[in-house]
Amino acid sequence: MIRISLDVMGGDFGPEVVIPGAAKALERHPDITFLLYGQSDKCEPFLERFPKLRANATVHHCEVAIGMDEKPSQALRRGRGVSSMWRAIDAVKDGTADVAVSAGNTGALMAMAMFCLRTMQGIERPAIAGIWPTARGESVVLDIGATIGADAKQLLDFALMGGAMARALFDIDSPTVGLLNVGAEEVKGNEEVKEAGRLLREADLDGLTYYGFVEGDDLGKGTVDVVVTEGFTGNIALKAAEGTARQMANFLKMAMSRTLMAKIGYLFARGAFRMLREKLDPRKSNGGVFLGLNGIVIKSHGGTDAEGYAAAIDVAYDMVKNGLTKKIENDLKNYHAGRESPVGPETA
Amino acid sequence: MIRISLDVMGGDFGPEVVIPGAAKALERHPDITFLLYGQSDKCEPFLERFPKLRANATVHHCEVAIGMDEKPSQALRRGRGVSSMWRAIDAVKDGTADVAVSAGNTGALMAMAMFCLRTMQGIERPAIAGIWPTARGESVVLDIGATIGADAKQLLDFALMGGAMARALFDIDSPTVGLLNVGAEEVKGNEEVKEAGRLLREADLDGLTYYGFVEGDDLGKGTVDVVVTEGFTGNIALKAAEGTARQMANFLKMAMSRTLMAKIGYLFARGAFRMLREKLDPRKSNGGVFLGLNGIVIKSHGGTDAEGYAAAIDVAYDMVKNGLTKKIENDLKNYHAGRESPVGPETA
Repeated sequence: MIRISLDVMGGDFGPEVVIPGAAKALERHPDITFLLYGQSDKCEPFLERFPKLRANATVHHCEVAIGMDEKPSQALRRGRGVSSMWRAIDAVKDGTADVAVSAGNTGALMAMAMFCLRTMQGIERPAIAGIWPTARGESVVLDIGATIGADAKQLLDFALMGGAMARALFDIDSPTVGLLNVGAEEVKGNEEVKEAGRLLREADLDGLTYYGFVEGDDLGKGTVDVVVTEGFTGNIALKAAEGTARQMANFLKMAMSRTLMAKIGYLFARGAFRMLREKLDPRKSNGGVFLGLNGIVIKSHGGTDAEGYAAAIDVAYDMVKNGLTKKIENDLKNYHAGRESPVGPETA
Repeated sequence: MIRISLDVMGGDFGPEVVIPGAAKALERHPDITFLLYGQSDKCEPFLERFPKLRANATVHHCEVAIGMDEKPSQALRRGRGVSSMWRAIDAVKDGTADVAVSAGNTGALMAMAMFCLRTMQGIERPAIAGIWPTARGESVVLDIGATIGADAKQLLDFALMGGAMARALFDIDSPTVGLLNVGAEEVKGNEEVKEAGRLLREADLDGLTYYGFVEGDDLGKGTVDVVVTEGFTGNIALKAAEGTARQMANFLKMAMSRTLMAKIGYLFARGAFRMLREKLDPRKSNGGVFLGLNGIVIKSHGGTDAEGYAAAIDVAYDMVKNGLTKKIENDLKNYHAGRESPVGPETA
């Protein structure tokens, strides 16, 4: 049984998307139990339509809903203890849920998650990991916006956590990890990235294979399983790529509706276009994973639909099922054990 | 008459691409005179095929060609004064050329350009500006890799130079300028970007309209005419977007050749696909402009073909024709005049 708490009020559409999304995810994973946090009168009309979900969910009424534009500090002040967002996270803390999912605003969600769950021992700063569709399949990319200007040690932490997540997600033993940089040569880049490269080579971590530097175009190629960068660059690279994909899709749509011949061609190739649309469906890669906290929180896009929200729940499900937190804890233990032994030469 | 010096040996293919590229550009702009720097025996066989170019070009023999993998320091040591790259730049310095174009390696080209031309008075660090295809047309994006970790003052310089370039390129009076950030709110981002935002608001520059912060997906939307960022993030965002475009084009190609129906559809929609291909042709946006030096140098992609190289020459031509250097100098003068007057309150 996987217990997933949902911030039902989060996102641009709240229960209208969250509840049908949960119902979809339940179809795929009948061993989920949901804890629904939200304004119960707003949840009920939607829950009525999904009897199976209702049988596998408990509704916990929360008066306060955090707005999509609320500042993190204000959200904490107003929502601590009482908001649907806080209580969904708190359920992970007190052990009644295995993972929390919210489509609420990222800043508020991260602030509450940090305040409530705290960072793991040995981890200085949290990261948000995204799943990036590539030519080879999928890669884990982190940080996509939690820690602006992460330093070398924090980048090493991200590599370790990203490696654990890739193992949980892709079922591989030793995922390849690359540091995002402006060139592949060792002399390239800023000091933090160069130093992180040195640390990663020396650390020789158990659960991953350090590949070296990768460049922006390696993201789409899928050169490595895990791409590590600090939150400023990661966030901008992600949005630049998403924007490019949207722009190209628009160009394609325009081109295919411009002439009669193109429209006829479109009719013939309908199946191919459907396949393409499915392959590029941004909803499929929905679900940012908060890493480095004592508990897992998944951020869904705020503007997604039920299908996209269900994908974020799928990610939550996979992370619990494959023991993400345990994997990170073990990797941290191994790393620190490796570090501590050479410190005491007298004991040898 | 626009005089353009070419580093004929630069790029993956050297004269094989550079000379046909120059011939193409000359067709479009008959008022160009070329100064060709390279190994004359390697240039001749290609020049023979383009009598019109030969009549409008002088060949300057240079024994040394800089390799695509040479380190900047090594390139400077080996190539200073004698290489085709150096001499093409030096022609701008001594006034025999108006602008230099090279497809050689970026690091070496920037090192030589800085060493030879020096930075403009009032500019601390150079930038490389790229032309980014958008949903609305084109935007100027800088820096895409010259100055890793630019500070707030340097970002302000980039805004000023980017504004001047947009005026030279797009024929608009006061281009909009945005700072690339992880959110639009003033509290978002790293210290340098926030400080640069304050500086830009206060500076109230003549030749541009400061828009505020923009995000990664605003690049493709074309929200502003000029997007300013430091070189690390700019380089990665550019390559991430290029990689996404390439990946989507590959998916589309695969989808359209998978079934007989798709292939028939492709035949009907051939014209639409041709239009799409032209619209997305990466060769069209070839040509990075080195800004902030006493002279203009254009960097072409190393792996481009003659069409792409000709596009880089087009950019060079436009920059000279529209007086880019003069525009930047004037903007700098106005900016510093604006700064100096309030310093002496006693004189009022």
